[in-house]
Amino acid sequence: MRAWQGRDVISILDFTRDELEQLFAAAEEMEEKLSRGKPPRLLEGRIVALAFFEPSTRTRLSFEAAVKRLGGETIGFSGEEATSLAKGENLADTIRMLDSYADLIVMRHRYEGAALYAAEIAEHPLINAGDGRQHHPTQAMLDLYTVRKLFGTVDGLVYGVLGDLRYGRAASSFILSLTLYRPSKVYLISPRLLRVRPEVRMVLEESGVRFVETESLEEVLPELDVLYVTRIQRERFPDPQEYEKVRGSYRVTLDLLERLAKPDLKVLHPLPRVDEIDYRVDGSRYAAYFLQARLGVPVRMALVSLVLGVWP
Amino acid sequence: MRAWQGRDVISILDFTRDELEQLFAAAEEMEEKLSRGKPPRLLEGRIVALAFFEPSTRTRLSFEAAVKRLGGETIGFSGEEATSLAKGENLADTIRMLDSYADLIVMRHRYEGAALYAAEIAEHPLINAGDGRQHHPTQAMLDLYTVRKLFGTVDGLVYGVLGDLRYGRAASSFILSLTLYRPSKVYLISPRLLRVRPEVRMVLEESGVRFVETESLEEVLPELDVLYVTRIQRERFPDPQEYEKVRGSYRVTLDLLERLAKPDLKVLHPLPRVDEIDYRVDGSRYAAYFLQARLGVPVRMALVSLVLGVWP
Amino acid sequence: MRAWQGRDVISILDFTRDELEQLFAAAEEMEEKLSRGKPPRLLEGRIVALAFFEPSTRTRLSFEAAVKRLGGETIGFSGEEATSLAKGENLADTIRMLDSYADLIVMRHRYEGAALYAAEIAEHPLINAGDGRQHHPTQAMLDLYTVRKLFGTVDGLVYGVLGDLRYGRAASSFILSLTLYRPSKVYLISPRLLRVRPEVRMVLEESGVRFVETESLEEVLPELDVLYVTRIQRERFPDPQEYEKVRGSYRVTLDLLERLAKPDLKVLHPLPRVDEIDYRVDGSRYAAYFLQARLGVPVRMALVSLVLGVWP
Repeated sequence: MRAWQGRDVISILDFTRDELEQLFAAAEEMEEKLSRGKPPRLLEGRIVALAFFEPSTRTRLSFEAAVKRLGGETIGFSGEEATSLAKGENLADTIRMLDSYADLIVMRHRYEGAALYAAEIAEHPLINAGDGRQHHPTQAMLDLYTVRKLFGTVDGLVYGVLGDLRYGRAASSFILSLTLYRPSKVYLISPRLLRVRPEVRMVLEESGVRFVETESLEEVLPELDVLYVTRIQRERFPDPQEYEKVRGSYRVTLDLLERLAKPDLKVLHPLPRVDEIDYRVDGSRYAAYFLQARLGVPVRMALVSLVLGVWP
Repeated sequence: MRAWQGRDVISILDFTRDELEQLFAAAEEMEEKLSRGKPPRLLEGRIVALAFFEPSTRTRLSFEAAVKRLGGETIGFSGEEATSLAKGENLADTIRMLDSYADLIVMRHRYEGAALYAAEIAEHPLINAGDGRQHHPTQAMLDLYTVRKLFGTVDGLVYGVLGDLRYGRAASSFILSLTLYRPSKVYLISPRLLRVRPEVRMVLEESGVRFVETESLEEVLPELDVLYVTRIQRERFPDPQEYEKVRGSYRVTLDLLERLAKPDLKVLHPLPRVDEIDYRVDGSRYAAYFLQARLGVPVRMALVSLVLGVWP
Repeated sequence: MRAWQGRDVISILDFTRDELEQLFAAAEEMEEKLSRGKPPRLLEGRIVALAFFEPSTRTRLSFEAAVKRLGGETIGFSGEEATSLAKGENLADTIRMLDSYADLIVMRHRYEGAALYAAEIAEHPLINAGDGRQHHPTQAMLDLYTVRKLFGTVDGLVYGVLGDLRYGRAASSFILSLTLYRPSKVYLISPRLLRVRPEVRMVLEESGVRFVETESLEEVLPELDVLYVTRIQRERFPDPQEYEKVRGSYRVTLDLLERLAKPDLKVLHPLPRVDEIDYRVDGSRYAAYFLQARLGVPVRMALVSLVLGVWP
């Protein structure tokens, strides 16, 4: 088991199951500290740079809350500002600047590999908050943590991952993260055009995890313990009619769940959603996506603390 | 008298005079602490979400300063970023996200009722920093506090509220707030098109406050103790000539004040102004709008501390 | 020697050599504190307003990091937001607002004189983070500090300042700052169109500093101890071909340095760069620009602490 301190977080596959369990133990302590009021000021005097070259509200605010709950500070940029920055200066110089101002860099970028490249330039550790289509390791961490909290374990469950498995990095990262555990079975539910990418399928095959690709949610829904829903974007479809068809058949409604799902099925979603989960599901026993969003803060508190070496 | 802790702040009418007096007593203490140097770190480890769906600089920075003076932290978004957020996600999901990251939400939105709706979703308290045309309760709080500071009381004074009384939420909120007190008289000075809305007139009538609607500033100016000026926006007028006429007749100049006003008249303005108050008024005995802006910080320090239950 | 506390920082020429040495002594202590871990929380409870009417990432984040490293907080705006602000309200009112929320204002503006004007309005001290074409005093401070760190002194060295000496405020400020010291010689290397402005030349002449204006980098390179490179912007040239010619002849490459420069030459650059310094220089003995960027934080920590009177 490698030490957490000073480590870059690029892909969920950089971590072993034991290392993740260490993270989750720390996250549990953070959760408890949060619920009891003031968490310890572990990050006082520390600065985390938030470099969001692609706009993001949830992930950015979740990291910001995590750092600030522990008495740390953030600096950085996002969205518009990042765009104009991107025009004026090469990525390496921007990363060197942040590296000389901060103790840790959290970065989102639209190109795959950007986080790895930046991590090689920075002397301080760097956390990938999403790069391109494949990696969003901290999302996968909080997803696993949520499952573990709901079921006591990640192993032995039947998972369905629904939506855009080709371009959606949350879905890809979650699928990859399951290969570190022993799920009973993983259904990859997507339209043909949006099936998992070959690199992800290869990792699945090598891991020995049982997985099945399918286009039908209804057929597999009765077997699932966890349904991980993601957005399907209109832009992915050359034909708008094709999009409408897919969208309709993948809409998770309360009626559908009550008709076909196990009573203990839990629905996850990295959010934001458009309309792939009906609002009537929100108040039901199935909905776990708001809990999941909330758990992002303690998981990131734990992650930042471990990487900066201030915990335990 | 209801407890302040955990309370939503949607409209100034949600509060009694006694409750406001409690707030103002706390604000006085905050003012004193600010003037003596370091205020107590009452909000250490706390996070306030600033959700400005409509751009704002003054109100946002005033809340931000208030929270940070007390050792708390803020997260959030404003302007451009909020616009793109608004497109991608429904308000309820955004509020739930902020509610799970922060201890308190401060929100501005262009639709009336948005704050009330959001407060019903959020488990943490929510402060309305302006929604639509009618409510801007924290502005009214600092307005009353300013009058109280200048005259020792809110009661017994003659008020003029000038400008766009129809669409301006600062003016509406101030007028409503006066119904909680016993002003001697309230002149509502506006062009015909921009008279107070029926809902506001109804509250005035029921309250028993003596009020008079007029189009002429000059006629009533000699009677006033407080002149509350607000902007008149060109867009409200179908006819640009009509706008120019109104604008000219409502311009508060030093000459006008010296000619017609009581020597102790105080001019308030929620700011920003365009040209409705001449810059020559700034240095005069009449100008109270910069003091008013400054008092926004201690009033909001008091409000946030009361609502979060860390004061007294 | 004037006291630092409460002082505005508008131009580098507002300071004497002795005052700058006092600043640099404080910066050395800040550097040491940074390297040993947690710097003291000198700014706890203090708020610095960052008013960037012109977009900036490096200078803004450098100030933000400096303030936050010392436990202080920032509020403010930049870029887009500032633009819309600028439309709605006059500068004086905006400055008054910030002045009433914060203990110190750091301001960037595209008009010369804006900082001086704002400083006259604000009761709290104001630091100019760049106004128009001439003044960027904190950049000059960190430039001098970098030279002093590299050579043990600013005196007695041969300097070359390269690029747009007419419109570039970092170059102008650096040149002006050298007149407070006793450089052996200063070469001003630029295309004819972009020579130093008359006001700067006048200060140089009056100071008695030996300076030579030239168009050729190659001719003077062998003599230099310090080469201060700045960007040349395409927009400055009426003829694009002229631009391409200039750009090519002023490109600092590793080959050029190895062929002509002293082994101890150090290359500085205020950054961001476009392509005026080849990336192959980055890893070489000549490159001092990343160090320079890093030193911006301790210099600004010292500056803010002195101006706010919390150090020593």
